[in-house]
Amino acid sequence: MSSLPKNQTTGIAFSTAEDVFVRGKSLTKELIGHLTFTEMIVFQILGRRPSPAQTRVVDACLVALMEHGLTPSALATRLVYSSASEAMQAAVAAGLLAVGSRFVGTTDDCGQLLERMLAAGGHLDDQARVIAREHHGAKRAVPGFGHPLHKPDDPRALRLLEIARDEGVAGAHVAAVLALSRAVDEVYGKHITLNVTGAIAAALGDCGVPREILRGFSIIARAAGLVGHVHEEQQRPAMRAIWETADQAVPYDGPLPAGGHPKK
Amino acid sequence: MSSLPKNQTTGIAFSTAEDVFVRGKSLTKELIGHLTFTEMIVFQILGRRPSPAQTRVVDACLVALMEHGLTPSALATRLVYSSASEAMQAAVAAGLLAVGSRFVGTTDDCGQLLERMLAAGGHLDDQARVIAREHHGAKRAVPGFGHPLHKPDDPRALRLLEIARDEGVAGAHVAAVLALSRAVDEVYGKHITLNVTGAIAAALGDCGVPREILRGFSIIARAAGLVGHVHEEQQRPAMRAIWETADQAVPYDGPLPAGGHPKK
Amino acid sequence: MSSLPKNQTTGIAFSTAEDVFVRGKSLTKELIGHLTFTEMIVFQILGRRPSPAQTRVVDACLVALMEHGLTPSALATRLVYSSASEAMQAAVAAGLLAVGSRFVGTTDDCGQLLERMLAAGGHLDDQARVIAREHHGAKRAVPGFGHPLHKPDDPRALRLLEIARDEGVAGAHVAAVLALSRAVDEVYGKHITLNVTGAIAAALGDCGVPREILRGFSIIARAAGLVGHVHEEQQRPAMRAIWETADQAVPYDGPLPAGGHPKK
Amino acid sequence: MSSLPKNQTTGIAFSTAEDVFVRGKSLTKELIGHLTFTEMIVFQILGRRPSPAQTRVVDACLVALMEHGLTPSALATRLVYSSASEAMQAAVAAGLLAVGSRFVGTTDDCGQLLERMLAAGGHLDDQARVIAREHHGAKRAVPGFGHPLHKPDDPRALRLLEIARDEGVAGAHVAAVLALSRAVDEVYGKHITLNVTGAIAAALGDCGVPREILRGFSIIARAAGLVGHVHEEQQRPAMRAIWETADQAVPYDGPLPAGGHPKK
Repeated sequence: MSSLPKNQTTGIAFSTAEDVFVRGKSLTKELIGHLTFTEMIVFQILGRRPSPAQTRVVDACLVALMEHGLTPSALATRLVYSSASEAMQAAVAAGLLAVGSRFVGTTDDCGQLLERMLAAGGHLDDQARVIAREHHGAKRAVPGFGHPLHKPDDPRALRLLEIARDEGVAGAHVAAVLALSRAVDEVYGKHITLNVTGAIAAALGDCGVPREILRGFSIIARAAGLVGHVHEEQQRPAMRAIWETADQAVPYDGPLPAGGHPKK
Repeated sequence: MSSLPKNQTTGIAFSTAEDVFVRGKSLTKELIGHLTFTEMIVFQILGRRPSPAQTRVVDACLVALMEHGLTPSALATRLVYSSASEAMQAAVAAGLLAVGSRFVGTTDDCGQLLERMLAAGGHLDDQARVIAREHHGAKRAVPGFGHPLHKPDDPRALRLLEIARDEGVAGAHVAAVLALSRAVDEVYGKHITLNVTGAIAAALGDCGVPREILRGFSIIARAAGLVGHVHEEQQRPAMRAIWETADQAVPYDGPLPAGGHPKK
Repeated sequence: MSSLPKNQTTGIAFSTAEDVFVRGKSLTKELIGHLTFTEMIVFQILGRRPSPAQTRVVDACLVALMEHGLTPSALATRLVYSSASEAMQAAVAAGLLAVGSRFVGTTDDCGQLLERMLAAGGHLDDQARVIAREHHGAKRAVPGFGHPLHKPDDPRALRLLEIARDEGVAGAHVAAVLALSRAVDEVYGKHITLNVTGAIAAALGDCGVPREILRGFSIIARAAGLVGHVHEEQQRPAMRAIWETADQAVPYDGPLPAGGHPKK
Repeated sequence: MSSLPKNQTTGIAFSTAEDVFVRGKSLTKELIGHLTFTEMIVFQILGRRPSPAQTRVVDACLVALMEHGLTPSALATRLVYSSASEAMQAAVAAGLLAVGSRFVGTTDDCGQLLERMLAAGGHLDDQARVIAREHHGAKRAVPGFGHPLHKPDDPRALRLLEIARDEGVAGAHVAAVLALSRAVDEVYGKHITLNVTGAIAAALGDCGVPREILRGFSIIARAAGLVGHVHEEQQRPAMRAIWETADQAVPYDGPLPAGGHPKK
């Protein structure tokens, strides 16, 4: 190991005997009892207190992301909890490990497109067409668009954009995602759903959340959702149903032993 | 695998093309924009909407738990994030794995004591003395009491109990933890801090949170805190300082090679 | 944070420019090419090289533990891998989180019983009867005994004990588990399978593996098994079958929206 | 959820009352006692038994990867274990989450370059120069090359290539990595270390390990290394030294409270 790196510091928190200070504010005198959890989340991550309107938009996004039924992350949490109930945190962690590129990463990728559109300058509709054509030419879906179930529109996306507008928070990012939505319909020659991940990229972007930490908000919301699944698994475990049906749904078709397939 | 278990069901959520329903409520018409994240957390986990006063107490608890500086969980998150930044969720998961019995489990254990006191009936002070004597006799700390830094009192505990009282939420569990605090001082012969985990067990208990899911609230709050550490690690990584000083702080003293200790 | 703890050291490894030394041995001159992976596992964990006979027993245990089909841990790994294929390590980690008290912990618990029998002195059969009666009286299963599928005997357990005997490794721990098996049959009044976790507790115990790290060997073996599931998921993903059948196997029966259950 | 996917099957394992079959072989009659752990790892992942020479090369790679001291993954494991010792598997999982793109991913990336060289046909030296120039032009390091400590050569890499040659396993992948090494020195105008990750990509590639599962072998080897750190943490915990020095190594320099920086 070579010489120590210089100037590696933190700006988040420190403690004294009398208090804890988070980003310079007294936890007990200025934060507990003064900020909601949502306000504190933004303050912790971004270092600034959100406006009341921004808070309502962030609340709406977190509420929208929390729970979608027995998704892969909820299934992983339940399988792990009933196998190792000595550590609830491990069950939630297992579920969070599935909050990755396939389902949630589209928020990040859509956020990157919006950022690119806004950085490029020029008319948003032109920028949107460039992006839609790129993806269409490469036979790829545009991140933030399309949904297997919620068609023609994702009701959560519509609701989040409505709240962002009603609260006066909707700005450049919402305008960009709407331009992108028009361009996608035009270039792909049919209406494609603007889904909840695209709407969240826009709504949180207009709250000042940097693209690279967007996924963090999904992680927080899903952590809460997964705690709900742990509690249900405590009360009425579904693990064996999950396990046994999955085992039957994926039959063995590999090499057989010399004497043929023994009966199960 | 034997026959399928019967009646394994879920009461949390289901989706239609037009909506998602969480515990029977329309996500888009009744939840998004109507509940704060904190209200939705309680609704998701417990299946009922908290009162405004309970919401303020839960908010206070979640704000109190979110961030305490470079704790083992924050260090694990930063080490993992800078080693594997392809998966932010893995960094948060690694940190959450440290939200376990040693630091947070005391909330669960204290909750269990409070539950036992309340179930036993009789005078709380008598129940409290029984418990304090048991632990004192076994030379064990009473869960929820004691703190290496915050002495004589944990300012977060005092603040949370104050809020629970001001909101009219403080009830049997807060009374029990205060009785326990008096008994601890009496039996141990000195003042021992009622710490933040004891106060949270009492405050959330009086909000109707069952003891077995108490740790879930710590996990949610810490998930948010750890996302803040990921974002700081993105902007100014501290991983090498953590790694290198830790490496130097734990010197090798095992068997030496034949030729003696080679120079590092 | 108070003063630094003293004398926190490590005896595992250190590096120089020319080499890495593990427990005092040159990685490149004395370990790579000289030890098998299994020998190195024992050397890394216990700090001593196993005998050839012990190595064959440890090999047999690790081979026995590696793979048992679509268990909860394999399902968690596959769900996470296909959700977040950017981080294979997260998928393996998710599966390992299920290697806990319910399925694997019985090895630890059985190891604890064997240790207690051996520490107590006296005749093993007497010690065994005490333990069997304790568990029978408390209507609890004896850890290491019973299996839903492998009846009347667990073929893996028989094979592992045979290898331990053939290699001359079988000693006090194997004698203890056999005494326990006789006592269990006697006290419960019927033959109960000595399962693979009980056999492993005995076989590894007689190789000198301390009880408190027994679970570590299961974790290593399962890590390898789970990598196999990741590779199959790369080639022919089964995640959607797992997800969709699990979703259908656990139907919603919670509160319904005002208008009744909408069609899925 | 739409209709079930068709033909999602597994070719790994199934159980009967009398046995477990892995890839068509009887676990108890053909695998336990017949294969070493290393042979079983290859059999589990790739579905074929390695030759004795390949087994020795895989053993050498796994031994080389197991342990490198207090790396970020070992630190994460120790921090988590001492915070949540109720779940050893969670501590190992936390460490494995750091086995990612930064330290281990270079094996995958180097494997991809070797695959590209071999697929391209033509003279390896020409292919190697193309790749070295690409990376040099982009001011990027070539994956598998360079090491902060092991200079001018990584002794583990030399040893692994020596074993691959001695065992007669070295083939196209080793030839490719050596060609790449010559090209790197030529194009960068100085000798750059072929490191252990590059050597492993070549050695495992010549054993028939597909590039996309290379990281799996690192994960297995590190799992074993991390169990060693758990066991040392059980015997002489270093967590507080790691925590406290890390906390001091990363001082707070964020906003100060109104009254200035309170004393710690």
